[in-house]
Amino acid sequence: MTVKVGILGASGYTGGELVRILSRHEGVEITHITSQRFAGQTMGAIFPHLQGVLDLTCQPMDVDRAAEVCELVFCALPHVTSMEVVPALLEKGLKVVDLSADFRLRDADIYAEWYGKAHLAPGLLSKAAYGLPELNRASIKVARLVANPGCYPTSVQLALAPLLAAGLIETDGMVVDSKSGASGAGRAPAQGTLYTEVSDGFKSYKMTGHRHTPEIEQELARIAGEDLTIRFTPHLLPQIRGIFSTCYVRPKEMLSLDEWRKVYDDFYASEPFVQLALEGASPATGNVRGSNRCDLGVFPDPRSGWLTVLSVIDNLVKGASGQAVQNMNLMCGFEETLGLSQAPLFP
Amino acid sequence: MTVKVGILGASGYTGGELVRILSRHEGVEITHITSQRFAGQTMGAIFPHLQGVLDLTCQPMDVDRAAEVCELVFCALPHVTSMEVVPALLEKGLKVVDLSADFRLRDADIYAEWYGKAHLAPGLLSKAAYGLPELNRASIKVARLVANPGCYPTSVQLALAPLLAAGLIETDGMVVDSKSGASGAGRAPAQGTLYTEVSDGFKSYKMTGHRHTPEIEQELARIAGEDLTIRFTPHLLPQIRGIFSTCYVRPKEMLSLDEWRKVYDDFYASEPFVQLALEGASPATGNVRGSNRCDLGVFPDPRSGWLTVLSVIDNLVKGASGQAVQNMNLMCGFEETLGLSQAPLFP
Amino acid sequence: MTVKVGILGASGYTGGELVRILSRHEGVEITHITSQRFAGQTMGAIFPHLQGVLDLTCQPMDVDRAAEVCELVFCALPHVTSMEVVPALLEKGLKVVDLSADFRLRDADIYAEWYGKAHLAPGLLSKAAYGLPELNRASIKVARLVANPGCYPTSVQLALAPLLAAGLIETDGMVVDSKSGASGAGRAPAQGTLYTEVSDGFKSYKMTGHRHTPEIEQELARIAGEDLTIRFTPHLLPQIRGIFSTCYVRPKEMLSLDEWRKVYDDFYASEPFVQLALEGASPATGNVRGSNRCDLGVFPDPRSGWLTVLSVIDNLVKGASGQAVQNMNLMCGFEETLGLSQAPLFP
Amino acid sequence: MTVKVGILGASGYTGGELVRILSRHEGVEITHITSQRFAGQTMGAIFPHLQGVLDLTCQPMDVDRAAEVCELVFCALPHVTSMEVVPALLEKGLKVVDLSADFRLRDADIYAEWYGKAHLAPGLLSKAAYGLPELNRASIKVARLVANPGCYPTSVQLALAPLLAAGLIETDGMVVDSKSGASGAGRAPAQGTLYTEVSDGFKSYKMTGHRHTPEIEQELARIAGEDLTIRFTPHLLPQIRGIFSTCYVRPKEMLSLDEWRKVYDDFYASEPFVQLALEGASPATGNVRGSNRCDLGVFPDPRSGWLTVLSVIDNLVKGASGQAVQNMNLMCGFEETLGLSQAPLFP
Repeated sequence: MTVKVGILGASGYTGGELVRILSRHEGVEITHITSQRFAGQTMGAIFPHLQGVLDLTCQPMDVDRAAEVCELVFCALPHVTSMEVVPALLEKGLKVVDLSADFRLRDADIYAEWYGKAHLAPGLLSKAAYGLPELNRASIKVARLVANPGCYPTSVQLALAPLLAAGLIETDGMVVDSKSGASGAGRAPAQGTLYTEVSDGFKSYKMTGHRHTPEIEQELARIAGEDLTIRFTPHLLPQIRGIFSTCYVRPKEMLSLDEWRKVYDDFYASEPFVQLALEGASPATGNVRGSNRCDLGVFPDPRSGWLTVLSVIDNLVKGASGQAVQNMNLMCGFEETLGLSQAPLFP
Repeated sequence: MTVKVGILGASGYTGGELVRILSRHEGVEITHITSQRFAGQTMGAIFPHLQGVLDLTCQPMDVDRAAEVCELVFCALPHVTSMEVVPALLEKGLKVVDLSADFRLRDADIYAEWYGKAHLAPGLLSKAAYGLPELNRASIKVARLVANPGCYPTSVQLALAPLLAAGLIETDGMVVDSKSGASGAGRAPAQGTLYTEVSDGFKSYKMTGHRHTPEIEQELARIAGEDLTIRFTPHLLPQIRGIFSTCYVRPKEMLSLDEWRKVYDDFYASEPFVQLALEGASPATGNVRGSNRCDLGVFPDPRSGWLTVLSVIDNLVKGASGQAVQNMNLMCGFEETLGLSQAPLFP
Repeated sequence: MTVKVGILGASGYTGGELVRILSRHEGVEITHITSQRFAGQTMGAIFPHLQGVLDLTCQPMDVDRAAEVCELVFCALPHVTSMEVVPALLEKGLKVVDLSADFRLRDADIYAEWYGKAHLAPGLLSKAAYGLPELNRASIKVARLVANPGCYPTSVQLALAPLLAAGLIETDGMVVDSKSGASGAGRAPAQGTLYTEVSDGFKSYKMTGHRHTPEIEQELARIAGEDLTIRFTPHLLPQIRGIFSTCYVRPKEMLSLDEWRKVYDDFYASEPFVQLALEGASPATGNVRGSNRCDLGVFPDPRSGWLTVLSVIDNLVKGASGQAVQNMNLMCGFEETLGLSQAPLFP
Repeated sequence: MTVKVGILGASGYTGGELVRILSRHEGVEITHITSQRFAGQTMGAIFPHLQGVLDLTCQPMDVDRAAEVCELVFCALPHVTSMEVVPALLEKGLKVVDLSADFRLRDADIYAEWYGKAHLAPGLLSKAAYGLPELNRASIKVARLVANPGCYPTSVQLALAPLLAAGLIETDGMVVDSKSGASGAGRAPAQGTLYTEVSDGFKSYKMTGHRHTPEIEQELARIAGEDLTIRFTPHLLPQIRGIFSTCYVRPKEMLSLDEWRKVYDDFYASEPFVQLALEGASPATGNVRGSNRCDLGVFPDPRSGWLTVLSVIDNLVKGASGQAVQNMNLMCGFEETLGLSQAPLFP
């Protein structure tokens, strides 16, 4: 028996990635895809790599239609747009995995401050499960609405959770220096993400405040059990996929390399998608390309007193669509790894 | 019941790609991997993207050991080295898919001329099946030794077979302008394939004669039923994977676009891995990345009298390891697409 | 004494490149730059690499203003837009180097056919000099309007002129397989030129007819002294700058490699910007990056009867702004290489 | 009158870059180039982009010969090799700009600790001028041996000098997260710098101690007037040129953005090669490509208490060969910018 799923916003990169993964998932049937801009076009016309992979045509958004043919929908819509449809979808009895930022923050005021718009469904904020399975599996399993985490927040939480949960580091003064591939900016044409502007170059952006900052702080605080503030700096990498976060934290006590590695090995011992890179090696974005994996590294530096934690994910998979499928697996009672066992593509 | 397979030469890119594909293949168990240079190391140490994917350690080459634990082996060894071990492997009763060039040419003299070395097992040349399933399925099914085609030859044969088989084009004067990603050059360090030398640049190479020329000519001649000579020019692309072949041929009679497209649609109607790109669109290497697919395009130009055929594959998949698994599936009685249904990775 | 020059359309890539070159040119002063879209902004705001290089602010287009402060203007405007202003600029007594396609074709009907619009100043077509100095120096020196050649046409003409001028090849059946970096598509945002769409991929485009085709044919015919038709196929490279043209032609008589090389060495003996790559080496786009150079290679293939000529330029320099400055040097009586002696940037 | 200069180690990337710059420098004549590996070959054969730029042949290393034909030499030799020849060159009366690390550290013990070899000429360490002109101009002008700074140290010192010199920040707890293009690894073939390994990926390296750490600390300490320890983390970017350093420091008092910008504007007011990027914009490596420029950005974050300083250079120009020429200009009494005014190449 298969679950009927829909993808709202199938013409963006996360939508295409959902099709790539779900079209090979044994437990589901994709019954419905939508796109405002490309309504009436087939997936193969929108994304030639999906020609022959999924023979469906994009529909305009229509909650009633979605409710008719789906049991669960993935909302791969832009921020703000998502909260316009999610309440109706839930009312129709659908389960929802929302890939936008609209249901990630618990506090509607903080949402309004960072996204510049009052929240349309503040009552749902406390009901949405925050969809990072490694830290939040129980609540996801029973949720009807899952807020799929941001790409940067996923990489940072998986990096720091073992330390914060065990109270091993100071919670103030943390520095997170993150680098993202260009696919994080989506498929909408913009001068700043042209090939000519991104290739063979590197820069920072949103130095005065990236919207993932409050999400990271909210969730790290939840893990730590206390409020905290981080310095989060995103950069744009000349590469397609991949997020690399270099996290600098202050240990309460400087342990040995072996001890730090044991903290991580123990914390993630039973996790299928998270592992430490081999000792001495840096995680690398190329090693997780196309997979739902998160590779970590931990490097103590007694000279300076800093502990550095490295974290890599594929922003479109573990940072978006792969994690969304992982959440769906939990919500629908499938094995958590179903459809997600593809090995990384390298080189 | 699973087939026990080995990979000889597992530390090169085609070896790593075989592990990526076979580790998720339901019909096989990888029981044996070898590497001269990295003997004693795990796959995860050699290829970090395979950490946690396959927990085996590379062995030195040992035919007896391979025969003990395998039923079929993939030889991902360098040219010349391969023919040193294949005869012994066959004698031990193993089935062999050889990814080198050593058993592709039918004529030992031509081999010697282009590879600079007398063939060590000329008697096997007529017994090896040429492993392009779309053109040669019957002989592969019953073969004990399959010579896996070269990457360029795969892209060119799939492009031109429908035309040559039907006798629709002149067999002289054909021009094949091919472009390959850098992974075709392998993982051995060389100045010419450093990032700094390849990135943001483009050049031709082996202008006076690439070794794939006789292979292409041999197989196109077999399809056409007559000898022929082509002008084959390879170029090095600043990209990791992918081959793009632009083929210029002279139609005996210039048909309409619809007629040309019908030739291809009919020829490949039942093929799971070959398709025409949508009308008007160019095939693109990015659309087949990581998959076993070949996308084609056909463009008549009545102004000049030329017919242009475009062909793209992932050189490491349909151009090497994916095709090798496709051949194994045929040799072992599996469904031909088993383990190869992964959708392309884009962007 | 310096010549006062203006750049109309300074906010595109060719405009920025003109500023890069002219700001270091001893014979000129940039007195005027325009941009419709970025009027009121400084060059440093539009192009941060020019911050501190040129302290001028973009003006809206105004022919009277241009005539007041300039003696010569470069029109780096889009096709069709250019012919709207060039006649007025000439009437005001300005010299004009036009980088658009508007004055390259001699025949207004062919222009209308390929550019979809009737020509607004057909009377100027016969008066404009075609600005490829190596083939047309005398007429450029005395011209008041120079039509700066297209990037592809520049690479192809320099490749084939020595052969056609000497009548050494057949004029029918020529195949030109060209590859261009993404900067050729300009700075206007478009899905097809996003980093994510171009990087690590390769495709053809405009397979049914690129607008540079009639320009190439017109000029090759002029050199050959007879009408001719070519098969021209452009492709999009995952690189920023550079055009690589692989030209396949039929020699009337197959000469030796040395003889072919002598044809080129003699033809370009006194040219400062054109040279043969060393024997055996392929020209490479990376070797001319940022320079006004054209590197060529010639490779006879007696097996197939084809002669292959390779040609590389930087599309923004010798294929656009560098060549425009070379033309200006000729029109103003400067040394032809003035401001253009910068060595290529590699790696 | 021109100065006769030699380049020892001309076949590496910094050697090629010296030729690119010096071949267009009005004050010098290149009279001598050496290469162990490529002795007997022309620059055009070693670096095709220099074909026609410099017609000299590489010689084997020979101090006597160098002394005969040069007044000043650039040592672009590997670490350790350089200190074997520099003493003899100085004895012969030559001026020397040494691009290796051999004369950058003041303390021979620290050199031995980080470079694994006892210093061969410890007496010269105190006599070498540290060649960062913006901070050390006076001593460079009178030096006979200049130790050209490392690429990372250049970017970091220019970023932090205005703050440390004025005592505006805490000297402990500084974090420097740096990213470098692949050209920093040189032209020697290695698996880790193959195109296939670097492209479309990102990783850290030398997490447990990069050799530039003591150089950065030594020079920052000199500026600050007190010892200090930093956390320095280098990463490898999928790009050819460029270093980007993100520096996190603790202000003693958090000033306003305008105040921080004024600190930098004032400090570098008369410097031709250093500037702040426009307000709100991130510096970007693409904006300094091929030029001797350093672009900076300063971003206070009162939320977290951190001040972030961004710094970009072209590692082969301001981070190596361009700075070497700047030093030579000072040593020889030329205008400091001579031969270095080339504008950056973008896109």
